[in-house]
Amino acid sequence: MEEFRIPGFKAAGGAVGIKKDGKDDLALVVSETRCTAAAVFTQNAFAAAPVLYDRALMDRAATHIQAVIINAGNANACTGTPGLRRAEAMARLTEQTLGLPPDHAFVMSTGVIGVPLPVERIEQGLPQVAARLREDGWLEAARAIMTTDTFPKLAHVALSGDLAPAVVGGMAKGAGMIHPNMATMLAVLATDLPVSAEVLHTVLKRAVDASFNRISVDGDTSTNDTVLLLANGRASVPPLERLDDPRLPQFQEAVTRVARSLAHMIVRDGEGATKFVTIRVRGAVDDADALRAARAVANSPLCKTAFFGGDPNWGRVLAAVGYSGARVDPNRTSLWFAGGTDGKRGPALQVVQGGVPTDYEESEAAHIFAQPEIDVLIDLGLGPGEAEMWTCDLGYEYVRINAEYRT
Amino acid sequence: MEEFRIPGFKAAGGAVGIKKDGKDDLALVVSETRCTAAAVFTQNAFAAAPVLYDRALMDRAATHIQAVIINAGNANACTGTPGLRRAEAMARLTEQTLGLPPDHAFVMSTGVIGVPLPVERIEQGLPQVAARLREDGWLEAARAIMTTDTFPKLAHVALSGDLAPAVVGGMAKGAGMIHPNMATMLAVLATDLPVSAEVLHTVLKRAVDASFNRISVDGDTSTNDTVLLLANGRASVPPLERLDDPRLPQFQEAVTRVARSLAHMIVRDGEGATKFVTIRVRGAVDDADALRAARAVANSPLCKTAFFGGDPNWGRVLAAVGYSGARVDPNRTSLWFAGGTDGKRGPALQVVQGGVPTDYEESEAAHIFAQPEIDVLIDLGLGPGEAEMWTCDLGYEYVRINAEYRT
Repeated sequence: MEEFRIPGFKAAGGAVGIKKDGKDDLALVVSETRCTAAAVFTQNAFAAAPVLYDRALMDRAATHIQAVIINAGNANACTGTPGLRRAEAMARLTEQTLGLPPDHAFVMSTGVIGVPLPVERIEQGLPQVAARLREDGWLEAARAIMTTDTFPKLAHVALSGDLAPAVVGGMAKGAGMIHPNMATMLAVLATDLPVSAEVLHTVLKRAVDASFNRISVDGDTSTNDTVLLLANGRASVPPLERLDDPRLPQFQEAVTRVARSLAHMIVRDGEGATKFVTIRVRGAVDDADALRAARAVANSPLCKTAFFGGDPNWGRVLAAVGYSGARVDPNRTSLWFAGGTDGKRGPALQVVQGGVPTDYEESEAAHIFAQPEIDVLIDLGLGPGEAEMWTCDLGYEYVRINAEYRT
Repeated sequence: MEEFRIPGFKAAGGAVGIKKDGKDDLALVVSETRCTAAAVFTQNAFAAAPVLYDRALMDRAATHIQAVIINAGNANACTGTPGLRRAEAMARLTEQTLGLPPDHAFVMSTGVIGVPLPVERIEQGLPQVAARLREDGWLEAARAIMTTDTFPKLAHVALSGDLAPAVVGGMAKGAGMIHPNMATMLAVLATDLPVSAEVLHTVLKRAVDASFNRISVDGDTSTNDTVLLLANGRASVPPLERLDDPRLPQFQEAVTRVARSLAHMIVRDGEGATKFVTIRVRGAVDDADALRAARAVANSPLCKTAFFGGDPNWGRVLAAVGYSGARVDPNRTSLWFAGGTDGKRGPALQVVQGGVPTDYEESEAAHIFAQPEIDVLIDLGLGPGEAEMWTCDLGYEYVRINAEYRT
């Protein structure tokens, strides 16, 4: 497991009794100094209380966030006005425990929905967790935010050149909506670079669009999904305050790489996932069309069961592209499969040319689909548009995990 | 199994050797006289050859269709220009066998894709099937168009009043996209009423929107989906030629009822389905919003696995409504569950009021979800919009059927 430190940030995790099984369920990330902050939230109309709280917080305090508190085991969603008060209480408790003024703590929750958040357990347990805050506490924090995740998710990039020796790093938890209710994709990213709130927001939005918004476990989005990026400015480099700063592409690249690494881990840890599948569309009229086509394949239950079964079923891929809404011309559509492991790939096999199957060997296609990692490359032959999505297969384990009764 | 006759129509089914297992794979529906016709086709951009052929046919011959030929075992999809020629050959062979002029036969195919249609087997077997055409041959025809369907699907309505004693009836096959490639929803409806092609088109469009377009097995749509409605005018009633004809609502109701009966059978026969689920949304800002919300729930893998598991997981239902794009106000959203069998329902249990759970008994909700038929009623509390969708659950059998290798 990747360990890292980000100067001026500490993290910790511990158990306060929200999860019934006694596992760690509370995480803290705290900066020694005030941070600029940017956040991207779920678009779900039933946004949970912490999301409602944070959205308002970001409007008034995006230049001085200093702490993040995250609980697992209870999503504080569909809890009405009392839930909102408890999210606020969670923030106040954090600020009091850490000696911070109001409006300095950001709140995240994940777990069962429709159940009152036991905020008194957070109150009781918070001091012990805060006492464990350490620069190398990210792994412990990442463990404490897990629900049905099977491994903690951490990633970092050390910057070079003009931005050295700053770091971008962070942690995330899984996106599959899961037993016992719905789960949530949460991520906390941090950097010691000095970045204005406006630039930070643009950078985060671009990074999320190229990472967390490009993964699909089951296509359902949760009430709690949140990605936060904090910048505490401890690194001794001139601040990044303009979108035309020549150092910005390097920072963008680092944030996107960290976000993408975490997103890929979420797919690999998808509920019951046995395959990591990359859908790459090129030759679309434009990027939006390419993304439509890629998303339709990534979300198709028929394609996902075929990936699970190791069935190189190109017909289902074409059918999904066909109903995606992307402009296509069957006579110009081509399709390749490639397989591999640990990011290495065997040769790509063309299975469709001009909308009809090539005379490929079925055994070669079957060999590719037997690999743990499968690439699906679709060329629409119409224009410069391209897009990439990452998804997993849909198998018996997904059904088992999600069909079990909630108790 | 429901048996019926429609004056002037004959139907038949038989085996011509397209399916490898020797089961029936060719069906005919023939009218003694020319029919007006209306058809609704898949929106999939990879429309199969028979769909391309029929679309052009309907442009030039919607007032004189007299025969329908349907094969199972081969979809004639992703077969390029040679496939289009074979679809045309299938029509010509039908016309020649039945002694009809060109452009009198409509063509449908379902089965494996990307494999050349063995049109020579149709040529050899067609005369024997045609020799069996009978007024009571609909059941035989419905059996011959089955792929992974587990039962033949037939429905009819006898008209009364001004339209008596005319009949509307028809047959369909399953919509789950299935092993070995993708399957298809096909339906042939017929009536002995005299109806102009324009009126017939409007009536069919409305009926399909309220039936086949309101069902979801896995959300994937096929390359071959086709619904055809024929009217041969044999009944001794004045023709239905205007949309303001006072008899039109009765005819519309009959066609919609037949289409809806067939659509419900398709859901009940969904791949691996163990539950029949009705999603009813009311109180939406408008009908379009209601349909968005209903469709999101009907297509959600998380909701569908909860139905399979008998888990009354209202949180997943709200989450699906929340990301549907429909306008919602959590504070005004209510949710009920009801269960039953054979169309009978027990009392509805309110589980959400104003976006938060009621103090319902979990055992009552669990009892409802143990029934074979489940109603999910969502009231958005915002306006007059309403919509209904029908779906099935997603269980191990769905995965098994769809993950198996295509050989």
